[in-house]
Amino acid sequence: MQSFKNVELIKKSNIYFNGNVTSRTFIDTDGSKKSLGIMMVGEYLFGTAEAEIMEIIEGDVEVRLKGENEWKTYKSGSSFSVPANSSFDIKVKTISDYCCSYIK
Amino acid sequence: MQSFKNVELIKKSNIYFNGNVTSRTFIDTDGSKKSLGIMMVGEYLFGTAEAEIMEIIEGDVEVRLKGENEWKTYKSGSSFSVPANSSFDIKVKTISDYCCSYIK
Repeated sequence: MQSFKNVELIKKSNIYFNGNVTSRTFIDTDGSKKSLGIMMVGEYLFGTAEAEIMEIIEGDVEVRLKGENEWKTYKSGSSFSVPANSSFDIKVKTISDYCCSYIK
Repeated sequence: MQSFKNVELIKKSNIYFNGNVTSRTFIDTDGSKKSLGIMMVGEYLFGTAEAEIMEIIEGDVEVRLKGENEWKTYKSGSSFSVPANSSFDIKVKTISDYCCSYIK
């Protein structure tokens, strides 16, 4: 999918880690909340409230979910899931473009 | 306006200046092209193909249009216009969130 149609796009940006991670929230046609974001090269720890699916649209990252020892690599077109009320460490190797879908 | 409704949001991001300026393009309900972007602190030169209106949603920038000597300051909630086939210099003082509307 190259675009999301008939969505409601929130005007104000979300800025994390001094602007090294930024995103825009939108409400998809089915009412679900998603965000499109960009991560600059670096290492970040993200907490989750809702469960989420992170799709790496373009980029190269390594991810370690809370409670796991292993780092897994995700590149352009691949996705990983994170449980609710959890966290993950992410090492961003190249500027990475992502789509995060929040799961109720 | 806090959100744009019934828009088509392009999935892939636009990345400029090594990620220091990024944006997402969307097609508004009237068919016009707009983008929501973020500029990190720095100085940038932007060229325009189409004329555009730049709204600073949140931030603090100084702008000098091509052919002008004067720098003008724009803060949260203010806008400036740039002619087609022109350019402008911008000094971004704090991380700035913008909406760019392209004018046919």
